Amino acid sequence: MKKITILINCKDQSGIIANVTNFIANNNGNIVYIDQHVDREQNIFFMRLESEFYSFSMKTFKANFKSVLAEKFDMKWRIYDAENKPKMALFVSKYDHCLYDILGRYSSGELHVNIPFIVSNHNDLKSIADNFNIPFYHIPVTRETKTAAENAQLKLLKEHQIDFIVLARYMQIISGNLIEEYPNKIINIHHSFLPAFVGAKPYHSAFKRGVKIIGATSHYVTEELDAGPIIEQDVARVSHTHAIPDLIAKGRDLEKIVLSTAIKHHINRKVMVYNNKTVIFS
Amino acid sequence: MKKITILINCKDQSGIIANVTNFIANNNGNIVYIDQHVDREQNIFFMRLESEFYSFSMKTFKANFKSVLAEKFDMKWRIYDAENKPKMALFVSKYDHCLYDILGRYSSGELHVNIPFIVSNHNDLKSIADNFNIPFYHIPVTRETKTAAENAQLKLLKEHQIDFIVLARYMQIISGNLIEEYPNKIINIHHSFLPAFVGAKPYHSAFKRGVKIIGATSHYVTEELDAGPIIEQDVARVSHTHAIPDLIAKGRDLEKIVLSTAIKHHINRKVMVYNNKTVIFS
Amino acid sequence: MKKITILINCKDQSGIIANVTNFIANNNGNIVYIDQHVDREQNIFFMRLESEFYSFSMKTFKANFKSVLAEKFDMKWRIYDAENKPKMALFVSKYDHCLYDILGRYSSGELHVNIPFIVSNHNDLKSIADNFNIPFYHIPVTRETKTAAENAQLKLLKEHQIDFIVLARYMQIISGNLIEEYPNKIINIHHSFLPAFVGAKPYHSAFKRGVKIIGATSHYVTEELDAGPIIEQDVARVSHTHAIPDLIAKGRDLEKIVLSTAIKHHINRKVMVYNNKTVIFS
Amino acid sequence: MKKITILINCKDQSGIIANVTNFIANNNGNIVYIDQHVDREQNIFFMRLESEFYSFSMKTFKANFKSVLAEKFDMKWRIYDAENKPKMALFVSKYDHCLYDILGRYSSGELHVNIPFIVSNHNDLKSIADNFNIPFYHIPVTRETKTAAENAQLKLLKEHQIDFIVLARYMQIISGNLIEEYPNKIINIHHSFLPAFVGAKPYHSAFKRGVKIIGATSHYVTEELDAGPIIEQDVARVSHTHAIPDLIAKGRDLEKIVLSTAIKHHINRKVMVYNNKTVIFS
Repeated sequence: MKKITILINCKDQSGIIANVTNFIANNNGNIVYIDQHVDREQNIFFMRLESEFYSFSMKTFKANFKSVLAEKFDMKWRIYDAENKPKMALFVSKYDHCLYDILGRYSSGELHVNIPFIVSNHNDLKSIADNFNIPFYHIPVTRETKTAAENAQLKLLKEHQIDFIVLARYMQIISGNLIEEYPNKIINIHHSFLPAFVGAKPYHSAFKRGVKIIGATSHYVTEELDAGPIIEQDVARVSHTHAIPDLIAKGRDLEKIVLSTAIKHHINRKVMVYNNKTVIFS
Repeated sequence: MKKITILINCKDQSGIIANVTNFIANNNGNIVYIDQHVDREQNIFFMRLESEFYSFSMKTFKANFKSVLAEKFDMKWRIYDAENKPKMALFVSKYDHCLYDILGRYSSGELHVNIPFIVSNHNDLKSIADNFNIPFYHIPVTRETKTAAENAQLKLLKEHQIDFIVLARYMQIISGNLIEEYPNKIINIHHSFLPAFVGAKPYHSAFKRGVKIIGATSHYVTEELDAGPIIEQDVARVSHTHAIPDLIAKGRDLEKIVLSTAIKHHINRKVMVYNNKTVIFS
Repeated sequence: MKKITILINCKDQSGIIANVTNFIANNNGNIVYIDQHVDREQNIFFMRLESEFYSFSMKTFKANFKSVLAEKFDMKWRIYDAENKPKMALFVSKYDHCLYDILGRYSSGELHVNIPFIVSNHNDLKSIADNFNIPFYHIPVTRETKTAAENAQLKLLKEHQIDFIVLARYMQIISGNLIEEYPNKIINIHHSFLPAFVGAKPYHSAFKRGVKIIGATSHYVTEELDAGPIIEQDVARVSHTHAIPDLIAKGRDLEKIVLSTAIKHHINRKVMVYNNKTVIFS
Repeated sequence: MKKITILINCKDQSGIIANVTNFIANNNGNIVYIDQHVDREQNIFFMRLESEFYSFSMKTFKANFKSVLAEKFDMKWRIYDAENKPKMALFVSKYDHCLYDILGRYSSGELHVNIPFIVSNHNDLKSIADNFNIPFYHIPVTRETKTAAENAQLKLLKEHQIDFIVLARYMQIISGNLIEEYPNKIINIHHSFLPAFVGAKPYHSAFKRGVKIIGATSHYVTEELDAGPIIEQDVARVSHTHAIPDLIAKGRDLEKIVLSTAIKHHINRKVMVYNNKTVIFS
C-alpha cells in the first residue's frame, strides 16, 4: 500500500474537485483526506489530498496527472510519497531553547524528518548537537567572510540534498543568493508579533511601546526582512510588571513552540504559499 | 442559481468521496466547498459539501441522492437550501447579557436566522424583546405548573415551526419530552469548562477549587444534565485576586461569545453530532 | 465609613512605602489594598492604595497629604472618593456592537459610572440610546463643520462636567484641541493589534499580510494617530479560511470586550499613565 | 546589601500593613516590593514583601519579627535570603519533554535553583541527565518494592537536603509518607484541565467527551489524587480533527510550559497555600 499527498493550486474554475477525485478513482486510489480552499478575492483554488493505492508507480502517476489534470486546469502541483522523510538543516547561533525543543521532539519521534547536520556561526551549541549525535559544522561569519561562509553552507546543503532549512534563532541575515536556492524552504522564527516590531530587538520595542501582549512569528524567509509568508504565530499576555528580561524569557517559550509548530506544518506538507501568504491545511 | 449544503455521515468505506463528487457533477452541480473527516477510532466518515446548480429541483435531487448514494453507502444525510433561514426560538430567564449579544448580532445581520419569539419564565427582559420588535411570551414555571408550561412552550414552537431552540441562560431544566421533540436542536450555555463543574453554581465551585482558568461551554441538551455534545468552549485566565463576583462578571463575557459562536455554527449547518460529540466543519 | 483610593507616582526613593502607610495609620485609616510597581529602567515608583476611615474630611486629608507626603517625595498624586461615580460621555458613529456591549453592562450594574449623554455624527443609533433612556445628541461632522461640531461637543462635555470620553467606534479623528482638554481621558478602541496596522482598514491590511492572529487595542487618544498609551489588548486566532468579512465579524467580538475592559480599568481608577505607557493595577 | 523575601498570612485585621512596613523601616530596611491580598470570604490576609538592608543578621531579624509582629497578629510567616538557591529534586519516568524543558532552562540560567539529582524508576532518561552533568539514580518501583524504593528516595532527599520535589511526568503515585515529609513541596504536572479528567489517561477521556479545549495543570501533591492546590494551568484549542495521539502531542507542549512556570513561581517564593488553594504573587 502506497500513500501519497497531493497539493494543487490553480485559478478557480468549475469541476476541479470532480475531475481530481475521478482521476484518483480511475487510478484505483482511495481518497483518505481531502481539503480545499478558495480565495474568493483572488479567485484561486487550493487543494490538499491524501490517497492510498495498492499498486503504484510514482513516475507513471505523475505523468498521467500532468497530462490528464494539470495541463487542463493550468495547475501548480506537488506530489509526495507520504513515507518519504524530508531532510532538514538546522542553522543556529548561541541561543539554545529552540534547538533543544526541536531536537527533543526529533528524538521522541514527533518530527517525521531527517536532520543531516547543524550549522552555526559559533561553537557554543556543539555539545548539544553531540548529545543528539548530529554532525555540527562551525562556519564563522564576519562581514568579510560572509560570502565564503554562505558558499560553504550551500556546499553542505547540496551535498546532503537538504529539502529545507530552519533558522532556529540564527542571528544572521540570509543573502538573496541562498534564498533563491530555497524559495519558501527557509523557515525563520521572529521574536515579535509580525508585522509589529520588524528587525532587531523587538522585545525592547515592545517594552517601550507598552503593549499588553507579546508574540512570536514563524515565516518563510524572503528578500525583504521579516516580511515573508507567515506560517504560524502565537502570543502571551504581559503587563507593566514585566521588565525586558521577563519579556525575553516569556518570549522564549513562544518562540520554541511557534517554530516547532511551523516545522511540523512544513514537514507534513500542509503549507501552500501564494501572494506572500500561506494556506495551512488542517 | 441554487446553492445547497449537504451533510453526510456513514461507515468509512472506499470510494465515498469519488461517488459523491461524481454524483454532483452528473447533476450538473459545481462543488464550491468540500470538507471531510474520518474518525479512525470509530471508523466513521463525515462530509460537508456546498454545491451550486443552475437549474435545480430539491425534490428530484433528494430522491436521486437517496437511491444513487445514500442507500449504497448506508448514509445518514441532510440537504439544505443555503438561502433558507432557520427559525430559532430564544428561551431566557433574568440574565440579559446573552440576550443582548444575540439580538445585537441579529439586528446587525450577522446571524442568518429568523427569531419568531422569545419565551421567558419571568417578565424582566420583556422590554429588551420589545426594543428589538420580537414577540415575547411570559410563561411562568413553578414545580406545579412545569408540565403545563412546557406544553404551552411546545404549542408555540409547533405553531411557529421552530427549527431549533437556544437557552440563553434559561435557568430551568428542560424535560425529556421537549428534548425528544428537538434532538440536537436545543443549544444551552453552561457557565463552566465542562466536564468540570457540572450543575448549579459552577463559579462558586471554581472559586473553591482555586482554578487558574475559568470557562464556558455551549452544548446540545440531552437527558443527562450538562453532558450533551459540546459545540464550543472558551476560557479566561483568573487569579486569587478574583472573588466570586469577579468570576461571574468575567464569565458573562465568555458565555455570550461562546453561545453566539455555537449558534452561528448551528445556523450555518456546520455541526454534525455522533456518539455524543460534534464535528464542527470550518 | 469613608473609602478612598490613592494613586501616586514619583521618582523611586527609599522609604516611600513606609511613609505612606504611616501617614494612613496616623490619620486613623485602615489600608485594605496596596499595590506598587517600580519601573527599574526609568526609576519611577507607582502606588495604588485603598483605605477606609471612620471619620474623614477630604479637604483636610488632601491638605495633609500634600504637605506631609507629596512635597517631600515630589509626588504626582490623585485621591478619589471610592463611591464617587465618574461621568462618561459616549461618542459613536454607525457601528452598534460596542455601544450595545457598554450599555448592557451599564444597565446590569457592572459599570460604576454615570452616562449623561451619547453623541454621534449620525442618527443611526438613536433608537438604542432611547431604549436605554440616555440623551442622544446628533452632531453631524463634515470637513467644513468639524470645528463647529467639536465646539458643540465641548460645550456638552463641560455642561455635564464629563470626567472622561469613550470613542465606541466613533469614526472621526479627534482634534488636538479636544485632546488637550481631556488628557489621558479619551479612550479609543482600534481594531488591530497595535502597533501593527495603524490607521484605516486594519482588517484589510491583516488579510493582505496573511497574519494568523488578529487583535484589538484600547488606548488613550493622543495627538499621534493610534499611538497613545495602551490600556488593553486581546487577540483571536484566524486562518486562511477567514475572508475579510470574517475577520471583521471576529474582530467585533474582540473590540467590544477589549473596550469594555479598558473602560472598567479606567472607572475603577486602576490606570496610571507615564511615558506613553500604562500601569494597570490588579 | 542583603535582600530578603517575607511571606505572611494571618486573619485579616486592621493595621497589619502599617505595622509590617514600620517594622521594616525601624530595622533600617528599604521595601522594594510589596503585594498583598485579602480573601474576603475567608477573611484571611496575605502579604509578600521584598526588602533590602545594608547590615543584616537573619537570626536577629527573625527573632524580632517573631516577638514584634508575628505573635501580635498570630501570623504564619516565612523569611528567605533572596540569594539562597533552593535545592530541587527531579523525579522522572520515561517521558522526556518536561525534563528537557526544565534542564534547558536550568542550563541557560533561567531557573534560580540547584538540582542535586534526578531519580527515575526507569533507566531511559539517564543519558539526558548525563548530558547535563546531573547525578541520576535509577530506583525501580514495583508493587512489592514500593516501600523500599520510597525509603531509598527519602534517604537521597535527606542526604542532599532537598527543599522541594518536581514530578516531571513521574508515573507513580506518591505515598502519604513522602507527602507528609514535603507538604506543599512536591510539584506535579497533570495532563488535563483539572478538576476535569482526574486520574489515568485524561487525553483519552477528553477525546471521548469531545471537548474543544484541552489543558494541563500543575499542583502540589496531596493525599487525594490530582486534588492538591493548583499552581498553574494552561489550555490549547482542539477540534474533531485531533485524534488521541494529536491530543497527546499538543498536550506535551502544555505540560512542559505549565510545569516550568509552576516551578518558577515556587523557586521565586511567589506561592502561598491555604485551604487547598494558592495565592500566586506577581
